[in-house]
Amino acid sequence: MKFKVFSELQYEVRMPTTFIFNIQVSPTSSQTILEESLITDPVIPREEFTAAAGEARFIKVQVNDPANFKITYQATVDLHYNIFEQRQLLDTVPVIKLDAETIPYLFPSRYCQSDKLQKLATKEFGNIENAYAKVAAINEWIFNNVEYLGGVTDSSTSAHDTLTERVGVCRDFAHLGITLCRALSIPARYFTGYAYNLNPPDFHACFEAYIGGEWIFFDPTKLVPANGLVKIAVGRDAADAAVASIFGNARCMSMNIKCESIDPEFKPYYIKNSEYQKGLSYQ
Amino acid sequence: MKFKVFSELQYEVRMPTTFIFNIQVSPTSSQTILEESLITDPVIPREEFTAAAGEARFIKVQVNDPANFKITYQATVDLHYNIFEQRQLLDTVPVIKLDAETIPYLFPSRYCQSDKLQKLATKEFGNIENAYAKVAAINEWIFNNVEYLGGVTDSSTSAHDTLTERVGVCRDFAHLGITLCRALSIPARYFTGYAYNLNPPDFHACFEAYIGGEWIFFDPTKLVPANGLVKIAVGRDAADAAVASIFGNARCMSMNIKCESIDPEFKPYYIKNSEYQKGLSYQ
Amino acid sequence: MKFKVFSELQYEVRMPTTFIFNIQVSPTSSQTILEESLITDPVIPREEFTAAAGEARFIKVQVNDPANFKITYQATVDLHYNIFEQRQLLDTVPVIKLDAETIPYLFPSRYCQSDKLQKLATKEFGNIENAYAKVAAINEWIFNNVEYLGGVTDSSTSAHDTLTERVGVCRDFAHLGITLCRALSIPARYFTGYAYNLNPPDFHACFEAYIGGEWIFFDPTKLVPANGLVKIAVGRDAADAAVASIFGNARCMSMNIKCESIDPEFKPYYIKNSEYQKGLSYQ
Amino acid sequence: MKFKVFSELQYEVRMPTTFIFNIQVSPTSSQTILEESLITDPVIPREEFTAAAGEARFIKVQVNDPANFKITYQATVDLHYNIFEQRQLLDTVPVIKLDAETIPYLFPSRYCQSDKLQKLATKEFGNIENAYAKVAAINEWIFNNVEYLGGVTDSSTSAHDTLTERVGVCRDFAHLGITLCRALSIPARYFTGYAYNLNPPDFHACFEAYIGGEWIFFDPTKLVPANGLVKIAVGRDAADAAVASIFGNARCMSMNIKCESIDPEFKPYYIKNSEYQKGLSYQ
Repeated sequence: MKFKVFSELQYEVRMPTTFIFNIQVSPTSSQTILEESLITDPVIPREEFTAAAGEARFIKVQVNDPANFKITYQATVDLHYNIFEQRQLLDTVPVIKLDAETIPYLFPSRYCQSDKLQKLATKEFGNIENAYAKVAAINEWIFNNVEYLGGVTDSSTSAHDTLTERVGVCRDFAHLGITLCRALSIPARYFTGYAYNLNPPDFHACFEAYIGGEWIFFDPTKLVPANGLVKIAVGRDAADAAVASIFGNARCMSMNIKCESIDPEFKPYYIKNSEYQKGLSYQ
Repeated sequence: MKFKVFSELQYEVRMPTTFIFNIQVSPTSSQTILEESLITDPVIPREEFTAAAGEARFIKVQVNDPANFKITYQATVDLHYNIFEQRQLLDTVPVIKLDAETIPYLFPSRYCQSDKLQKLATKEFGNIENAYAKVAAINEWIFNNVEYLGGVTDSSTSAHDTLTERVGVCRDFAHLGITLCRALSIPARYFTGYAYNLNPPDFHACFEAYIGGEWIFFDPTKLVPANGLVKIAVGRDAADAAVASIFGNARCMSMNIKCESIDPEFKPYYIKNSEYQKGLSYQ
Repeated sequence: MKFKVFSELQYEVRMPTTFIFNIQVSPTSSQTILEESLITDPVIPREEFTAAAGEARFIKVQVNDPANFKITYQATVDLHYNIFEQRQLLDTVPVIKLDAETIPYLFPSRYCQSDKLQKLATKEFGNIENAYAKVAAINEWIFNNVEYLGGVTDSSTSAHDTLTERVGVCRDFAHLGITLCRALSIPARYFTGYAYNLNPPDFHACFEAYIGGEWIFFDPTKLVPANGLVKIAVGRDAADAAVASIFGNARCMSMNIKCESIDPEFKPYYIKNSEYQKGLSYQ
Repeated sequence: MKFKVFSELQYEVRMPTTFIFNIQVSPTSSQTILEESLITDPVIPREEFTAAAGEARFIKVQVNDPANFKITYQATVDLHYNIFEQRQLLDTVPVIKLDAETIPYLFPSRYCQSDKLQKLATKEFGNIENAYAKVAAINEWIFNNVEYLGGVTDSSTSAHDTLTERVGVCRDFAHLGITLCRALSIPARYFTGYAYNLNPPDFHACFEAYIGGEWIFFDPTKLVPANGLVKIAVGRDAADAAVASIFGNARCMSMNIKCESIDPEFKPYYIKNSEYQKGLSYQ
């Protein structure tokens, strides 16, 4: 399935500022980048690098003079995620079998204080029979118990806050899902990407849990079809995968995001209840 | 300078439990492992792996039956850290020049909520002239303003707590140092190791800040000589470099740690005031 | 029903220290003080005062010289609380009908951040039909979801912490109950007293909710019989009703608490499930 | 000195809602209410009550039907606060001498977690010679270290947050001042009122500390002249003295506040540095 994605971010830069952007599509085995372009206005030198863990493509640019600065990215991507029957995913991979790349996703991180929620997670979800069912129950619980509402939370809001205040946006939903998984010793990571039919258009955040040896996709917001996500990055949480990190002084003036299917046969697939679903992997 | 380090950890295991230990000396360019041994009692299979970032050596073991479990490590290490004149360290490396391995140490992490402390750090330390002087001032500030006291904080205590409650142990001191550096856009990371003459003997935690292109060592506790640290690991914070992560149910019964100089010419060097020091790097 | 209560607190005083004690039985319409005595050793001047709201009897003493200091209180109390059928308690008293003494118990306080938990409380308990059933459900929820465990929480632990960490002692249980009630606009207050058959013996903390015009008693720990509580004080939370507030430097060396029935016909009555109970009021 | 104060609050009420307003001038020995009026539109029954502690005048009204609701208050007040030389205020009143009305202002409250800040307050301000100088130093410290900025904090922001995030509005400044005083065993309370020349016009929040037997006024924002405050209420913190507490569902559409001098000889007096000032009391 082919998608066209687009993002345009405009900033008013007030003093010399370094930006680290994370808006490019990630070349994973699930998605092939057919073409892409990235333009800055004004045109200035930029450097691309990948994170240590390899999943995210960052761009560094420095704007030296007070000015308006615009970065525009577009790509065409061919998406071919994997689908698993639940019976393939029944096993929690025991910690002793996890490899070095996966183990860090067991540990707490800035926005995911899983160390604080072990009793809660065990009480609420610990007795559920298998790993897939546990994470599916976490996903449903978040959907049912946290109100999706913009403008209440901000970039310092963490899962600990969301658990008590029960309100937030996709980022907060994802952080809470990750935290509850890790508190049950299930590796989980943040997933940021372009999402088909997100309204209003924006970047989207979801999460992946490591089940049966696969990174299975979950979206507790249920805002978008599960088969329309184009991955930008994964990370421990939003601290690893911020769309833009700004060192200096710049103000975002506008963000314009698009994600369109260019495949006439694309049928958006909305997950009603993740407990009864096959597993999707965007790995 | 040669050091002998030793650690022995005993656990009462109550149900099948996986341990991830992080107690072995790290083979860096500053330290050569002359010999080492690691024994578990009972003898059970173990697996060693290094973290994605490469600095830490983890051991995974699984204890399947309720039992007492003991892990014992000893090593002889030749230490040859680097010393820098402050004039070599005057420059903050601008964010635009940081490489992919260093950039993650700019971002907030579980115990280091640098995103919340930017105004405070800028107000207190922002006007200090160069990066070395900034971090040295942070180090002195923590030493002067936080009381070293055991038993008050625990494994969920973060820099945000320490900043207000003004009490903690080496781990808390290190987290606060890291957080204030990152809030000033200076990369900083957690350093855990064996320390000569730490009293009572224990693992020690300090931090490194990236100044003038080098990872310079700071210890806001001032408890041990700066030239007697044997590195186990670096990481974003204690979540990356816990001595032992336990998945299951086990209780630590005893810890026995030693770090001895076996070099008759070793002269312990205590830093009185880091503002007037040369920089040390254990990198 | 007659009870004898006793408390003896010993302190090592290191510098001139003022104590405010709150250990005397409160003379309410539910309990008659038949006799009581309070002794300090050494004998020093003391002053008794009642809080603005009138429910607590505080004692102020100042120990000027480093010394051991002991305060001993004993009383015999005749207890005659009220029992209400649930049908008498069906009505939530609307805020517009609350009087000036009751309204402050609607507002958040130090350990009861009810302003943060409104969405959670409404989601979990908002649809329950009447005020008694709501508070009974809150009480059962705390009993079922929070682990009673000493030594994990301390005097700065609040309901916000307990809600996520799911562990604590009677004080933490009470604070969480109060907070969830207030978040539903049901006035609730902290109740501290002597408790029959508490094991190990200690002061006890519970809460009262204002239902049907009465202050109804709830104890989410279910540790003691509901008919064996001798009230010391009520307040917004433990900040209003601390057993001892210490200004200076003193260390508690021992606490010895007793609460005995001296009525041969006393039958301890344990509430199994507060949903199916009559309401008790110690007002 | 005579002042005219005015406030008009408009709400869109969506379901039956009870309001508790706290906008009327408090009749203290420092201010005489020459005339006042309070009107609601629509005209509905209202009830006035004073808080247990007696300082605040609350109005309860219930709006039963979805509607716009407006409350308008105006008063003319004659202000005659007291002025004290610092030498009259040198003594900290020892806790043992505090009376029952004052003691509650020593304890932590919802937005003022003084129990958590004792080490910090003692370190920063504990060695300053007398109570007036201590509180003046706290006031200067807040003014110098916290940025006044609207829209960042909200009604759940507490002194603990402000201390680390170093940003807020008058309410946050007052809470931090109160907290630091209490952490030094100096009683302190929240003061809300109308303020001459506040820009943009709004209700104002400051604090009072109990020094030398007087409640001395401090305003760490330094936004308004110290001789132009008309008191509405005092309380432990904003939880006791909210302008409007809303039980139901209503949205504030507009607030219009005024505070004008009607005395041609009034000379606004701005405190530059509270360390060198006489003490003002609005008690």
